[in-house]
Amino acid sequence: MKNNQTPSSMPVHKYRPYHETLGIDLPDRTWPAKRIEKAPRWCAVDLRDGNQALIDPMSPERKRIMFDMLVRMGYKEIEVGFPSASQTDFDFVRSLIEDNAIPDDVTIQVLTQARDSLIERTYESISGAKQAIVHLYNSTSILQRDVVFKQDKQGIIDIALHGARFCREMEKTIPGTEVYYEYSPESFTGTELEYAVDVCNQVIEIFEPTAERKVIINLPATVEMATPNAYADSIEWMGRHLAHRENIIISLHPHNDRGTAVAAAELGYLAGADRIEGCLFGNGERTGNVDLIALGINLFTQGIDPEIDFSNLDEVKRTAEYVNQLKVHERSPWAGDLVYTAFSGSHQDAIKKGFESMEADARAQGVPVDSLVWAVPYLPIDPKDLGRSYEAVIRVNSQSGKGGVAYLLKQDHNLELPRRLQIEFSGVVQAKTDAEGGEVTSDQLWTIFQDEYLPAANENDKWGRFELTGSRTESDFAGTLKLSVDLRDGDEIAPQNAVGNGPIDAFLKLMAAHNIHVELFDYVEHTLSAGGDAFAAAYVELNVNGNRLWGVGIDSDISTASLKAVVSAVNRAVRQEQAQLVTA
Amino acid sequence: MKNNQTPSSMPVHKYRPYHETLGIDLPDRTWPAKRIEKAPRWCAVDLRDGNQALIDPMSPERKRIMFDMLVRMGYKEIEVGFPSASQTDFDFVRSLIEDNAIPDDVTIQVLTQARDSLIERTYESISGAKQAIVHLYNSTSILQRDVVFKQDKQGIIDIALHGARFCREMEKTIPGTEVYYEYSPESFTGTELEYAVDVCNQVIEIFEPTAERKVIINLPATVEMATPNAYADSIEWMGRHLAHRENIIISLHPHNDRGTAVAAAELGYLAGADRIEGCLFGNGERTGNVDLIALGINLFTQGIDPEIDFSNLDEVKRTAEYVNQLKVHERSPWAGDLVYTAFSGSHQDAIKKGFESMEADARAQGVPVDSLVWAVPYLPIDPKDLGRSYEAVIRVNSQSGKGGVAYLLKQDHNLELPRRLQIEFSGVVQAKTDAEGGEVTSDQLWTIFQDEYLPAANENDKWGRFELTGSRTESDFAGTLKLSVDLRDGDEIAPQNAVGNGPIDAFLKLMAAHNIHVELFDYVEHTLSAGGDAFAAAYVELNVNGNRLWGVGIDSDISTASLKAVVSAVNRAVRQEQAQLVTA
Repeated sequence: MKNNQTPSSMPVHKYRPYHETLGIDLPDRTWPAKRIEKAPRWCAVDLRDGNQALIDPMSPERKRIMFDMLVRMGYKEIEVGFPSASQTDFDFVRSLIEDNAIPDDVTIQVLTQARDSLIERTYESISGAKQAIVHLYNSTSILQRDVVFKQDKQGIIDIALHGARFCREMEKTIPGTEVYYEYSPESFTGTELEYAVDVCNQVIEIFEPTAERKVIINLPATVEMATPNAYADSIEWMGRHLAHRENIIISLHPHNDRGTAVAAAELGYLAGADRIEGCLFGNGERTGNVDLIALGINLFTQGIDPEIDFSNLDEVKRTAEYVNQLKVHERSPWAGDLVYTAFSGSHQDAIKKGFESMEADARAQGVPVDSLVWAVPYLPIDPKDLGRSYEAVIRVNSQSGKGGVAYLLKQDHNLELPRRLQIEFSGVVQAKTDAEGGEVTSDQLWTIFQDEYLPAANENDKWGRFELTGSRTESDFAGTLKLSVDLRDGDEIAPQNAVGNGPIDAFLKLMAAHNIHVELFDYVEHTLSAGGDAFAAAYVELNVNGNRLWGVGIDSDISTASLKAVVSAVNRAVRQEQAQLVTA
Repeated sequence: MKNNQTPSSMPVHKYRPYHETLGIDLPDRTWPAKRIEKAPRWCAVDLRDGNQALIDPMSPERKRIMFDMLVRMGYKEIEVGFPSASQTDFDFVRSLIEDNAIPDDVTIQVLTQARDSLIERTYESISGAKQAIVHLYNSTSILQRDVVFKQDKQGIIDIALHGARFCREMEKTIPGTEVYYEYSPESFTGTELEYAVDVCNQVIEIFEPTAERKVIINLPATVEMATPNAYADSIEWMGRHLAHRENIIISLHPHNDRGTAVAAAELGYLAGADRIEGCLFGNGERTGNVDLIALGINLFTQGIDPEIDFSNLDEVKRTAEYVNQLKVHERSPWAGDLVYTAFSGSHQDAIKKGFESMEADARAQGVPVDSLVWAVPYLPIDPKDLGRSYEAVIRVNSQSGKGGVAYLLKQDHNLELPRRLQIEFSGVVQAKTDAEGGEVTSDQLWTIFQDEYLPAANENDKWGRFELTGSRTESDFAGTLKLSVDLRDGDEIAPQNAVGNGPIDAFLKLMAAHNIHVELFDYVEHTLSAGGDAFAAAYVELNVNGNRLWGVGIDSDISTASLKAVVSAVNRAVRQEQAQLVTA
């Protein structure tokens, strides 16, 4: 079997292997034989490194939402900003302190370059905090020394030492705050190890670590430049050569340029690190920081407590998406929309048998199924533990072989269903056609879709408990909106009013008055027609009285479409509740 | 510095560490000291494993587009389907063969379970091909043996051996086709290694490998269950114990459940594997297969020829997005929209100095800059080598501190700019305000946006070379659209007609007649107003006469908005060309 691959015309001559410049020889490395047995100290840097990499930086309101969520999840060290580089960051740190928003067991961390004026401003920002980590950095790599700072090795060391000494002086200006230190030889992965350890050890002497007041030495893969085992080697090597190792916390800060940041963090942790800095869902410069969600839940699947609460991962995801204004990818580890979805028949069959086997075992042992060790093929975790659920999607092909449900609805009706609604609707289609992997016409599909999500075409045929027959809105342009609707509830039609920050918000309040308690998970809208009349479609994912499902609304007015979508979801929930009452 | 982390309430008791069930002890492992020196054999499985994980499977047309692109990129082994499981896959394999679409140096691969009827159908599908790899699999893991197949170890071996023997028989029915074999002990990562090697060695005897006709043993991380070093250990162990090793091609097939598939592939390759199966951008079941883009370009950055052409990565991305109907994430390694974007001033400064230093070196040596070794801080690769460019984004904050450009345009004008347009427009804003990280009012921003992208409000003030003053379309509902527009070019207004598969397609043809050569990169539209009139906004990213840039169109009709967006981009390109002529 010949290998037919041929050389490409890519300009390979422009690049050199990492080990030619920076490789180390560590034949007695011990990390490959080690095992992870407990959670590292985590430090969430979403508000600094994550925020630094957004086109639109977070507003103070969004920053606060992120901070509060990180605290709720259990993160105890949170880098909250680079206060000397940005007034917004400075103000945010001040507001956290002045609003008493930092719990006693949480330590905020602030980044600063090793320059006097910036250090001074940094201490100003943390005055009044119970405790804080001052994170001092300067760049140490060969390339940055040559090209950016035009300094020799001693010149770069002097920058670090001067900065560290000035920190110790400034420390005296805020006696009410317990100050801890972190030092990063930035661009560590581009730095000779002998030199990196020399800089670190000289800085360590100035920070005077003790058992009570350890010093954090953070070794960033500012740019990920090699396979993750090379990073692990460098961490093990550093651990052997750092002074006062017993009073040093070795911290990792991997970036994901090569797509191996999670591995670099895990192998680096095996290699002796104590702490990991990263961001939720891997936000951050370029390809991002290491993903704290993947790292934490990876531990959990090995029976190791991550010491972080991931039990409502969808809420974490939704919040991060809002704060970062970046979507989490459908295939993002543990969190993506498609991660607990099985498409192939053989996978679905194996998963079904796995669930059945666990239930049988639990019955035989007379214990609840949740007390057993999880063992379902193709599902390395129980999605329930993260507030998710397993979805078996049997794909429905059109007769022409030209694609399935989403394709046909887009092609023939201009509807672009959100990914999770596609999954939900494919279940509806299966239930109605009972055709495993079978074929369905576009017309059948459209009938099923209308039956399930849209009001009946026939006006005498009342579709669901609620119906919207008119709506008016009035905005004061100050964030308040008055909504009036004509709403049928059962047989009664009555005009109703509510106030909210938008039409959906107002309408949900109105629904609450009808004893329908709704939480909004997702909202998507688009124009319906590429042709003449620009109709709009709105899709909402709601939790209605504990039942999570989608609704769809179509109208020439996008605002009305969104209200219709809420009605659609609520009617579906009511219908499902009634069906359950009947079968119960 | 106390670690304040506390136990979570996550149900840790449900999980066990991987090594308790399946760990091996390999103290004399050699892979951590090895280095990657050449590209592996690649096998692209987008058309099978990738396709299997899409809500809407690929249409035959989309399959063919993907196949042709994989061939163009340089992949020589391509898994094209599971023909015995799906009529669509069967028909697709037949069409490739009957249309002579498979180059002589490309080998197609087809997957089959070890069952007679499926194997028979598989051989039927490849009849007439010059050569093909028959990829036989059955599941071997502890869990699948217990729960799914309810067979002991020998029972599972018998399934594999029976399948392998039946393959050898069926081989005789297609004498014109050179048949090669691949065997996968599926769910390998859940299988005891001693048992896995036993199954493989018995199958190998049946396939009778020779130097000319090696046998592929594929060791899938069907579910990624442990840190990637554990996978590498298992690959090294298998390599030591496989019979006829010299005539065996060890293949890796890592899935990405824990976010470490790229690392698993790299470490497994260090551990002695010869070949890697994966998908472009990591498409595939759940979290996906290993990402072939990351793996290939990682090699490239080490001066190793990937033997694949990544020089037009945007086209590859666009095509994969169309075929898979899944977006590539903004931070996807080497390919994401934000991957070559620097936001922080210190990064931008360092990058600038890096470029300058390289240019100075090239001048001093009297050589072209592209002959030098790449050395720019924060950019591990020259984006140009992938057809991309570096973007320095200086963020503009609003005076209220409530976010930047994208936020304000959304908040005050309901415009949702696509990510790359946000980047482009932030450059426009910087050029006009010259305020590094400075502040700008929402009104200033809107004026700048209108000046740059939209026709002047004053009708006497002609905005750009072209202007659209009317449009009519007529569709035959069979994929052909007739477009008539009233178009001003300079001072001349004339009605013009063109035909295309849609309004944009027709309009681009019309532009070509005006000597404006346009290629469409991206197209995004949305409703503009959440209130009364549902206006629509369209955004297009075009290559206009070699210049890549965005255009924006706003209209009550989405179709007209899209044409206006093309005009906007074309006018901007013409304006930039003229500005260059003036300065030249």
